[in-house]
Amino acid sequence: MHLPVGFRFAGVVGGIKSRVGARDVTLIVSDTPCVAAGVYTTNQIVAAPVLVSRSRTPSNTIRGVVVNSGNANACTGTRGHRDAVEMTKHAAAAIDPTGKLTAEQFVVMSTGIIGRFLPIEKIKAGISAAANELASTEQAFWNACDGILTTDIARKTTERRFSLDGKETHIVGMCKGAGMIGPKMATMLAIIITDAPLQPTQAQRLLQSAANKSFNCISVEGHMSTNDTLVMLAAQPTCAIPALHGCNEIEFAKQLNEMAIELAKKIPNDGEGATHLVEIRIQGANTDADADAVARSVALSNLVKTAITGGDPNWGRIVSAAGYAGVPIRPDHTALKINGFPLFERGEPLSFDAQRVSHSIKASKLTEIDLQVGLGPGVATHWTTDLNTEYVRFNSEYTT
Amino acid sequence: MHLPVGFRFAGVVGGIKSRVGARDVTLIVSDTPCVAAGVYTTNQIVAAPVLVSRSRTPSNTIRGVVVNSGNANACTGTRGHRDAVEMTKHAAAAIDPTGKLTAEQFVVMSTGIIGRFLPIEKIKAGISAAANELASTEQAFWNACDGILTTDIARKTTERRFSLDGKETHIVGMCKGAGMIGPKMATMLAIIITDAPLQPTQAQRLLQSAANKSFNCISVEGHMSTNDTLVMLAAQPTCAIPALHGCNEIEFAKQLNEMAIELAKKIPNDGEGATHLVEIRIQGANTDADADAVARSVALSNLVKTAITGGDPNWGRIVSAAGYAGVPIRPDHTALKINGFPLFERGEPLSFDAQRVSHSIKASKLTEIDLQVGLGPGVATHWTTDLNTEYVRFNSEYTT
Repeated sequence: MHLPVGFRFAGVVGGIKSRVGARDVTLIVSDTPCVAAGVYTTNQIVAAPVLVSRSRTPSNTIRGVVVNSGNANACTGTRGHRDAVEMTKHAAAAIDPTGKLTAEQFVVMSTGIIGRFLPIEKIKAGISAAANELASTEQAFWNACDGILTTDIARKTTERRFSLDGKETHIVGMCKGAGMIGPKMATMLAIIITDAPLQPTQAQRLLQSAANKSFNCISVEGHMSTNDTLVMLAAQPTCAIPALHGCNEIEFAKQLNEMAIELAKKIPNDGEGATHLVEIRIQGANTDADADAVARSVALSNLVKTAITGGDPNWGRIVSAAGYAGVPIRPDHTALKINGFPLFERGEPLSFDAQRVSHSIKASKLTEIDLQVGLGPGVATHWTTDLNTEYVRFNSEYTT
Repeated sequence: MHLPVGFRFAGVVGGIKSRVGARDVTLIVSDTPCVAAGVYTTNQIVAAPVLVSRSRTPSNTIRGVVVNSGNANACTGTRGHRDAVEMTKHAAAAIDPTGKLTAEQFVVMSTGIIGRFLPIEKIKAGISAAANELASTEQAFWNACDGILTTDIARKTTERRFSLDGKETHIVGMCKGAGMIGPKMATMLAIIITDAPLQPTQAQRLLQSAANKSFNCISVEGHMSTNDTLVMLAAQPTCAIPALHGCNEIEFAKQLNEMAIELAKKIPNDGEGATHLVEIRIQGANTDADADAVARSVALSNLVKTAITGGDPNWGRIVSAAGYAGVPIRPDHTALKINGFPLFERGEPLSFDAQRVSHSIKASKLTEIDLQVGLGPGVATHWTTDLNTEYVRFNSEYTT
């Protein structure tokens, strides 16, 4: 693994999660003030750490990110807000005991149960311990990744290494998404770190654009969390090493977009319950935004999702979900393929070998849906999971 | 049971459904030309019978309704359209072999599997058989009710008998629907029959208004069907018995609205595998339309639905679903009760006896959610089901 230059990582056991020995406090620190951009949940019911971090990005004075898992600090009112600020204040003090850093130089994320006050003393102790363990090693990076997970079954990371004008550039990313197996923890957190130099507004623009084609195109059940946060840390441009521009910015954006998609897809792909990752590709809408609406409508249909669970090439459910997306489609020019098999064309059913299509769904973790809606140039791709009894059991049996 | 005067009913076994002995062809006939109004799916992928019936209502020359279950005649292109027209043509001929009735005097509905051509000869034979059995008896009415069912567990009917200016007036209704139930018209068929005299546009206005507070406020999984149809047949006004007006119309509308809600609630109550009927009452939105959007967002959240399955008073899921409904709410004035227990107020969690609330959810088929969003006078009520493994199993194992 090739980590970006100038960043250190730690993830420790703070005792917030009930599972013994689970890391639940993560610290990521830049050696010098860095650039930070953020994309946040658009839910109006928004957790305290989101309010705090949102007010601090984009910025070029950030020194790090502090995260706890096991408690979302959401729906916790003024005390929750005070606790979120306290986490950043304590991170600043723990990293530079001389008091030169301020709370405002840190962004904060929380994920876990909603509606419980943070065990703030445990978290502060965890932050102190993490500050002592900060390192730029692979192991430290992995510990940091583990510290943001909740019920994920696997650590979710990705990296890119490429050359910009002969200079080796790195981007690494980590995320968590309880997804299928997330009871009250359906939060998505993602952190992307690069040593490429970016201006704050540039970083914000690139991050938002990457999010629109990746983290904004995944769903498990469409329930938007109170805590979703995507933050990117980037190097501060200097006179000697100015911010990326021209072809370099374009190449960086391409790499960033690709890795954001790779990272985002790990969320619906994960989870004990999920037996399928479903890729929904829409073509032929009037605009990309319209295609996005169609993809979302198909992705969120429980009937589509359960059909895939059962290996059922039930194209009627897919086509009818497209029909109520609220944007124009042209029924008599609509065509559908599942895993490459044409099932529906020009508004009429095709005869097909149902056994063969069913087998292709059952045999692969990935199900590919191609839907042409017959109007214009608009395209979109979304990723979701199937819906099976494991998901329901998990989310029903978890009780407060 | 008190049936409206002037209508006859039949439901017969046509051999369309695979289950032996299941009624699947229904005929409802008015002795004289009657008034008909209709409300239909807004899905752009719309079944042939909907296209045919939609073009024929409102009207004051209708003689009846012909319905088949077991096959939706949806996504069947031009042949499907021809078949739907053929059903009405055959109904006209079967009821009056002298050829005085026209196809256009019948509305048609189909429900069942999508994307298969109708077994039209079987259906025509069924229509002929039904025409021979038409009667104004209770048993005939129940047979008609059975003929429109698909995966429903129970027959769904309701009736009202009341006096308008001393004249006894009747409204009866039947509906079907268990899965694929989205708000904005469910995968459901409903027929309401009254002997009250109404003008066609008046019938249409009263029916749409009743639908907005009843059939448009129920959901199972939010998947809007291609076939949803609600039709009302009413008596033709005459010089002697003019159309309802004034207080009589108001009283009729009140009775109609109440029975539409009673009928509509039977659908989620009988949802595939449903163990709970969930009533979601929203108050304090800026407008009724906004309240409707909040209710819909809560009703469609799988996380809310699975929590109720498990008897989990997981208020965070409900409040956060309200937060992403896309209409304004005021988080710091938001308050939530489940089954009357206050759980969340002014944006902060209340302490409550989780065991007791959980027990109240588990002990009752009905779960009541009251959510105050703190802004204005807008109110709405929706009804949905919980989401359990039975639903998932059913919809996974059902194969085309």
